[in-house]
Amino acid sequence: MTKKAVILVSGGLDSATTLAIAKEQGYDCYAMSFNYGQRHMVELQSAHMIAESMGVLSHKVVKLGLGDIGGSALTDNNIAVPQNPEQEISTDIPVTYVPARNTVFLSLALGWAEVLDADAIFIGVNAVDYSGYPDCRPEYIEAFQTMANLATKKGVEGQLIKIETPLINLTKAEIIQNGTRLGVDYSKTLSCYSPDEKGRACGLCDSCRLRQQGFAEANLPDPTLYSEG
Amino acid sequence: MTKKAVILVSGGLDSATTLAIAKEQGYDCYAMSFNYGQRHMVELQSAHMIAESMGVLSHKVVKLGLGDIGGSALTDNNIAVPQNPEQEISTDIPVTYVPARNTVFLSLALGWAEVLDADAIFIGVNAVDYSGYPDCRPEYIEAFQTMANLATKKGVEGQLIKIETPLINLTKAEIIQNGTRLGVDYSKTLSCYSPDEKGRACGLCDSCRLRQQGFAEANLPDPTLYSEG
Repeated sequence: MTKKAVILVSGGLDSATTLAIAKEQGYDCYAMSFNYGQRHMVELQSAHMIAESMGVLSHKVVKLGLGDIGGSALTDNNIAVPQNPEQEISTDIPVTYVPARNTVFLSLALGWAEVLDADAIFIGVNAVDYSGYPDCRPEYIEAFQTMANLATKKGVEGQLIKIETPLINLTKAEIIQNGTRLGVDYSKTLSCYSPDEKGRACGLCDSCRLRQQGFAEANLPDPTLYSEG
Repeated sequence: MTKKAVILVSGGLDSATTLAIAKEQGYDCYAMSFNYGQRHMVELQSAHMIAESMGVLSHKVVKLGLGDIGGSALTDNNIAVPQNPEQEISTDIPVTYVPARNTVFLSLALGWAEVLDADAIFIGVNAVDYSGYPDCRPEYIEAFQTMANLATKKGVEGQLIKIETPLINLTKAEIIQNGTRLGVDYSKTLSCYSPDEKGRACGLCDSCRLRQQGFAEANLPDPTLYSEG
């Protein structure tokens, strides 16, 4: 019998690698993305290209009025995205933090997983580069798993939906090495917090800089398209 | 200093009572509802009337593509809502169960609570009448609380957002007695799973029958408008 998994696909490097890992593990893959009023809507185009190129059985884009809630530079046009090439990449909770985002995304994935009778949910959270985000830590994921086991009909019947976080302890270089081995086309992915209208990366924000460092440390060519290339 | 709370308001009897209890406890109240493709859209009108009449500081209706996910008679037009006046009210997990609904709603409330710097989230779950719903049980709420403490910036900084469930162990009659004492106008609330276009209740579905029994056992007049009245 085939195993099914819901994979949260943002359009970025991490979630593309996560999808490739789920596929390698033999899961029938169902990709899920969110249209939540993010400023960089081009990431949904990336998510679509990635999901299609990796042969998912379905790609669902759920509309979500998260922008109404505000409180983050990624959804609120009144908060500037930091572009600080001279500064250290911050390990504090950044202003790009979206309130309860992973909790909301995992909850919706849980709903779809229950409908699909899926065995697992894959999410590309990473505790190495995103130590400032509370909802990227292993103890958070464990608590979500415990809650999910109690939340669903499947859980009550003893069939657990496993929350899988294959990247959680990997460096960016290790993620890129894994994905490259699995054939991920990183030119289709977008990590930048403020890309231009053609989906080209700024090369200056924290997310771009982490990605650049990752390719350098992995000794692999960086296929990213930059706006000032 | 004033305390703030986010209250999940569906338009039904339970959440209206929950809002009245939060107000009585001295909270500044922020009401949150969801437009999730539910078939009974008139419940959002009830939610609006209730929130307004109880003087909330803000009422946010978040759009949510939950209907895309399907799997429930409340969002999927291909599954019939049971109308079985001759039968026992079921204690199995009913077909009206929406996958992971309370988890999704609480997660979005958690995001808003974090932005508002709120102290609590109130949800009108009830383990007496809804024993068939896994996400109405106390052990589920406790697990959500543990997860929420780990999920948020506030939690990491030691300021917990308390998940309050004042109705969880009350019978329907006790809920109605409490709300009546607090001045809730139940004629503004809607519990029916399949109301007519004017928002009048069917009087036949499980939810209508629970409500009717509740008013009868509380020895209070039932102000509900029924379509076959």
